Amino acid sequence: MLALGIDPGTATTGYGLVREAGDGSLTAVDYGVVLTPPDTPMPDRLVMLYESLNEILTLHQPNTAAVEQLFFQKNVKTALSVGQARGVVLLALAQARLDQAEYTPNEIKQAVTGYGSADKNQVQQMVRAILNLDEIPKPDDAADALAVAICHLHSAQTRSAYDQAS
Amino acid sequence: MLALGIDPGTATTGYGLVREAGDGSLTAVDYGVVLTPPDTPMPDRLVMLYESLNEILTLHQPNTAAVEQLFFQKNVKTALSVGQARGVVLLALAQARLDQAEYTPNEIKQAVTGYGSADKNQVQQMVRAILNLDEIPKPDDAADALAVAICHLHSAQTRSAYDQAS
Repeated sequence: MLALGIDPGTATTGYGLVREAGDGSLTAVDYGVVLTPPDTPMPDRLVMLYESLNEILTLHQPNTAAVEQLFFQKNVKTALSVGQARGVVLLALAQARLDQAEYTPNEIKQAVTGYGSADKNQVQQMVRAILNLDEIPKPDDAADALAVAICHLHSAQTRSAYDQAS
Repeated sequence: MLALGIDPGTATTGYGLVREAGDGSLTAVDYGVVLTPPDTPMPDRLVMLYESLNEILTLHQPNTAAVEQLFFQKNVKTALSVGQARGVVLLALAQARLDQAEYTPNEIKQAVTGYGSADKNQVQQMVRAILNLDEIPKPDDAADALAVAICHLHSAQTRSAYDQAS
């Protein structure tokens, strides 16, 4: 089972693909960030994000996807901007007919570290350990996206849906 | 010149198409709302919005487009939700290679009524009068979208770009 995790943003959208083997072990298949240039008009940046996501979906054909929830945004202007990127992400995933889950930052921390108030470094160290990587994945948004994918694969819902399908 | 005005939202997106004749007179070509069912998952609602917009773009082939700015949203959760719909709107317009302008609610009121603090009813009455309609266009989001298109056609930028192109 291949899960795609996404941490959406207008300037930087992190993505991480994690495969779960039959024995439950997890490996990172690919991860990175989609960057859009700040001096480009927003509609064009959203097209870039949409096209990059579609390339990732076509290349890897994930079985399931999860997106980080962003209700912690304090600033209305930031929320509107992140919402625009998020809308394009949800659209691309739905058009690829992927089931989509959403997790709050605390759910992700809890799933990855067993501790909902873990700090960024603890989460990144656990992502490295769980995926058996030599180093912490960089940049931060890619590590966050891998954490979303791990959280999704560990969630009971995902396991149940996959067991029924296989 | 045919302008498409859009008032984006997750549940209701208003659209209005206004044609400017050679003598500067404006007529409403089409207007309405794209509704998405509240009991449907958000990603599927965004797909519905995207597909409906593409149908409108294919049918009417507008020359230019304008979207209402939404910085007045006070609630972060609402801003995120409206942002998602807005991201899909900007994407669809950019993919149709349409120039896009944005106007604040005050700019739209000013352009339509000559008065930035006009109330909703005053704006709707002026939209009816400018477009020579028998009645106020309904629902409200469609009337708002027509006001966006009128504002766009009245803006100096739009005139200048059109003059250069023609």
